[in-house]
Amino acid sequence: MSSEFDLIDAFLSPFGAGKGVVVGPGSDCAAVQPSRGKRLVVTTDAVVEGVHFDLRRFAPEDVGWKALAVNLSDLAAAGATPRWFLCALGVPRKQRADLLARRIARGMAPLSRSSGCALVGGNVTSAAQWSITITAMGEAVRPLSRSKARPGDALVLIGRLGDAAAGLRPYPHAAAVRAQRRPRPLVREGRIAAGFASAAIDVSDGFLQDLRHLCDESGVGAVVECSSLPLGSAARALPDGMELALSGGEDYALLLSVPRRKLAALRKQVRCIAVGRVIRGAGITLTELGQPRPLPRKVGFDHLK
Amino acid sequence: MSSEFDLIDAFLSPFGAGKGVVVGPGSDCAAVQPSRGKRLVVTTDAVVEGVHFDLRRFAPEDVGWKALAVNLSDLAAAGATPRWFLCALGVPRKQRADLLARRIARGMAPLSRSSGCALVGGNVTSAAQWSITITAMGEAVRPLSRSKARPGDALVLIGRLGDAAAGLRPYPHAAAVRAQRRPRPLVREGRIAAGFASAAIDVSDGFLQDLRHLCDESGVGAVVECSSLPLGSAARALPDGMELALSGGEDYALLLSVPRRKLAALRKQVRCIAVGRVIRGAGITLTELGQPRPLPRKVGFDHLK
Repeated sequence: MSSEFDLIDAFLSPFGAGKGVVVGPGSDCAAVQPSRGKRLVVTTDAVVEGVHFDLRRFAPEDVGWKALAVNLSDLAAAGATPRWFLCALGVPRKQRADLLARRIARGMAPLSRSSGCALVGGNVTSAAQWSITITAMGEAVRPLSRSKARPGDALVLIGRLGDAAAGLRPYPHAAAVRAQRRPRPLVREGRIAAGFASAAIDVSDGFLQDLRHLCDESGVGAVVECSSLPLGSAARALPDGMELALSGGEDYALLLSVPRRKLAALRKQVRCIAVGRVIRGAGITLTELGQPRPLPRKVGFDHLK
Repeated sequence: MSSEFDLIDAFLSPFGAGKGVVVGPGSDCAAVQPSRGKRLVVTTDAVVEGVHFDLRRFAPEDVGWKALAVNLSDLAAAGATPRWFLCALGVPRKQRADLLARRIARGMAPLSRSSGCALVGGNVTSAAQWSITITAMGEAVRPLSRSKARPGDALVLIGRLGDAAAGLRPYPHAAAVRAQRRPRPLVREGRIAAGFASAAIDVSDGFLQDLRHLCDESGVGAVVECSSLPLGSAARALPDGMELALSGGEDYALLLSVPRRKLAALRKQVRCIAVGRVIRGAGITLTELGQPRPLPRKVGFDHLK
């Protein structure tokens, strides 16, 4: 069995130093220097073996990438610039866990570098299954939340839907495999959107479910025109692609509410599609080419069911 | 089975709002307002069912308290003032998990309030066993790390050793049960120590192992006089109390290196005991009333063994 300390050394090896880091890995706490005039934006998200990934089907490098990507996607939804992250590992008592940890880190480190999000600390504990719990920190002058969508706002989507869920089907299309294993967090797009949107959420649990979260937190309803939804290329090729787009989850697209008067300006800066509108009241109505379309029975992912 | 969203509501219910919180639980990210002129100090630590606690022996309230306490102890070792925390739960797919989550939260919330550390967000995922992974954030003008102990510094201990390990023995003393289940993080003491110490660590894995971490990170050695070690009342009553104090772990005492010229001033402000000295070189030497004492074979806790 690997010792805790061998495993930590193996995990840390592919990561570089970060900006604004006063105390990095190796002490009880990390210490960083926040920027003046900005809010600190923080999120935590876990991926668990047997729940979010299966090591017989996922390469450890993919697991590492995705564990960080899903957290960066949350920062993107807040319009924040990624700065630092902590990584807590749950590790089964098995032979050569340090080798697997090193491969997980090798998948994570390139995304850490390219997003400017430096590893500053973490934790290791034994557990029944592998898990990676990341806490990512970013900064924003005016962070977006889910709670400020207003009736009359346009609903706008950045990114594509359905491909990640298609990646879990047998014999998936290459685009679907990529979307499932190596989702690209829309950090740049989120930062731009923060200048225009009233509220935002990343589409992780399924478009309809995440839209419902946004509506519930804002105390509003929504109408969505399904024919406007931007399906990914793999989802488009499937007979039930629209269902995957509505309820599949793990897309890591950004769903925004944008005041109408700001829509044209946003469109000039980032590729995005208006998919509906925010209305008074509660509940989500789907239309297809203007006609009502029933809501699917399963709207998204419940992490305990 | 509880839904994810029922469980989140149950968990959040006993917590109050915090200071400096711009966006609290309910969005993709929390947003907080850091203080000007301070460093942000962050740590993450997990407690896992079957590894750190057994729900047949621990009340869920104790688990909740301890999960936060161990993180606050890390902030204490950095000399930081606790501000905010995130809580990621791993939850087995069982009946009424929401009731257990509420009890965990009920144990955690009083410590959150008394320490001024507000819950600002978290995550829930299913898992094979209960786990609570907390990321705590604090602030300090000059955070302590493990890496700046210098030869000639005194080794100083705040708090007591051995009782938490004694609490795992059959028929434990009440003080030992309390130390094991409800450790008190030495936040105030750590903040004071930050004005005097050159380096610090909290004694979580066992005194000798944590001293070794401090020495390794600082590139120094240490001599410890065992008769000076402050044993807790339960450990003192056991024939092998000294072994528990040296290697038992989970004490959440603070171990500091303090330049000699600052020792008297520190002593005036906080109850602490000089237990040895930092020396050039590497390795730890134990003495007992000045005579050499052999190191125990097992010096502390490896989280993967």
